[in-house]
Amino acid sequence: MTPGPIRILVTGGTFDKEYDELAGTLFFHDTHVAEMLSLGRCLLEAIVERVMMIDSLEMTDADRARIAARCREAPESRIAITHGTDTMVETAAYLGRSIEGKTIVLTGAMVPYKFGSSDGMFNLGSALAFVQALPPGVYVAMNGRAYRWDHVRKNRERGVFESV
Amino acid sequence: MTPGPIRILVTGGTFDKEYDELAGTLFFHDTHVAEMLSLGRCLLEAIVERVMMIDSLEMTDADRARIAARCREAPESRIAITHGTDTMVETAAYLGRSIEGKTIVLTGAMVPYKFGSSDGMFNLGSALAFVQALPPGVYVAMNGRAYRWDHVRKNRERGVFESV
Amino acid sequence: MTPGPIRILVTGGTFDKEYDELAGTLFFHDTHVAEMLSLGRCLLEAIVERVMMIDSLEMTDADRARIAARCREAPESRIAITHGTDTMVETAAYLGRSIEGKTIVLTGAMVPYKFGSSDGMFNLGSALAFVQALPPGVYVAMNGRAYRWDHVRKNRERGVFESV
Amino acid sequence: MTPGPIRILVTGGTFDKEYDELAGTLFFHDTHVAEMLSLGRCLLEAIVERVMMIDSLEMTDADRARIAARCREAPESRIAITHGTDTMVETAAYLGRSIEGKTIVLTGAMVPYKFGSSDGMFNLGSALAFVQALPPGVYVAMNGRAYRWDHVRKNRERGVFESV
Repeated sequence: MTPGPIRILVTGGTFDKEYDELAGTLFFHDTHVAEMLSLGRCLLEAIVERVMMIDSLEMTDADRARIAARCREAPESRIAITHGTDTMVETAAYLGRSIEGKTIVLTGAMVPYKFGSSDGMFNLGSALAFVQALPPGVYVAMNGRAYRWDHVRKNRERGVFESV
Repeated sequence: MTPGPIRILVTGGTFDKEYDELAGTLFFHDTHVAEMLSLGRCLLEAIVERVMMIDSLEMTDADRARIAARCREAPESRIAITHGTDTMVETAAYLGRSIEGKTIVLTGAMVPYKFGSSDGMFNLGSALAFVQALPPGVYVAMNGRAYRWDHVRKNRERGVFESV
Repeated sequence: MTPGPIRILVTGGTFDKEYDELAGTLFFHDTHVAEMLSLGRCLLEAIVERVMMIDSLEMTDADRARIAARCREAPESRIAITHGTDTMVETAAYLGRSIEGKTIVLTGAMVPYKFGSSDGMFNLGSALAFVQALPPGVYVAMNGRAYRWDHVRKNRERGVFESV
Repeated sequence: MTPGPIRILVTGGTFDKEYDELAGTLFFHDTHVAEMLSLGRCLLEAIVERVMMIDSLEMTDADRARIAARCREAPESRIAITHGTDTMVETAAYLGRSIEGKTIVLTGAMVPYKFGSSDGMFNLGSALAFVQALPPGVYVAMNGRAYRWDHVRKNRERGVFESV
């Protein structure tokens, strides 16, 4: 397989949260996606684009429209999106209803990358593999699986994604 | 996608090396694959089977025959194999020539999982995604990509895999 | 030097904060001090006693009285206290004014132990050394130094302790 | 306490070993002491001097003479030395017999700093505290304790230091 270039749209989420040691709170500083790709010795031709840097609980439909626009405008047909897990399913549905002909895979993390025992590296590896191998469509890649946008929900009690 | 169960065959490799603090050397104790799946919050139905626990430089054709036998005998049609990177391509070729009708993905790591800044979690996530999404065949999943067994070599100077 | 047993009073603070992956917030679960001593291969005769588990911004004078009582009642003459950094100086002053004849060293961390790049292990090693080697008195051990309780303040802008 | 400047002599040891991902072996690249001081938010006036970068099993009496010379020539009266654990006791004895009027503390690690679960940060914090607080003499700071050079041995079976 010689995949063409892949675009990675960064929107924030737990993935990129950091600890502010002066305030004792969590905040966004910048994305760690490039650092994570480097740690994973990733040699894909990947363009990392920071679209926004927010907690997905704060994501509005205007934000989703902006993400959809970036998906449409991007010359790449394979796009990975890092996203908070709380409303990942909503954004996936928004994109699923409005975009055709591209393979789009959303992923995120339950624990910030910077906090050591994160699922972030596993999920990023998984999402980048699915985005290369799956046919056009919008998917959520979490917990080692890929779910079609219209067959997934987040189980908030257990902190995992499941088929519907 | 509702993948059936996936078998993960463990053969050792850098992936699972640990530091012996009394001897000051690297050694194999046990596999970390189950711990890594747990850290990745992986919810695939995955059966982890330890076939051997060796440095891939020491792998013989008898070892490869044993791995091939385990691939054939396994009831699962999707199999991931953790393997040292030094002879991963040789084992992939051995399996590629002798097994049909199954999707088999080999992966490994350049740095032991236990040593902090490892590519292991990224590669495992990637391999498990490829094994679900790719058609039957034997592949090497490293550096964020999947290479067919007959189109890959390890570049030992750079420590990466590349297409041939 | 053959130090007698040392008591470690745990009061909470950033030291012991964890990330709640369901809520996306920081919380206290249990103390990590025993795990940290084990990681440090510490062979001191140390008794770890959990007095409370709170953010030091919430610490009241009643809490401080309780800590002081535990210092007085403890049979050991050398006591280390893990404490949030925000009001560590206040608690040190409270103890400095009310306890005599014991070496008491307070320490903490700017980043939770569980978040990877923490100063916690360094500070704990430092505090346990100072508590063995310093004469009776109450000290704050942070930033590699030991400050007497009446000669220290926290510089909140820089997140460090300094002499006054 | 307002300690004067402290000199940290780096000699190598497990402390500073790294994993060579191309060769799959352990090697010395450069010292991590400055990075460790930064991670520990250490504000001591510390001068880090790299004297040599070797496994302590390879340390000769000529090397020890060089370390002793650096201790004598240094303007500081408080000196910490990072050292492999295998012959730390021998070097401590060499210094103990030949240097007077300075507080010298040797420390090291059982696991490389770069390998995640290291005792290095704990030991460095401990050594820097002891070097400030102890009277002149030569000490080994390991396992949370400070041992006088003529009252310590390494228990190689258990990987710890103990009083003699």
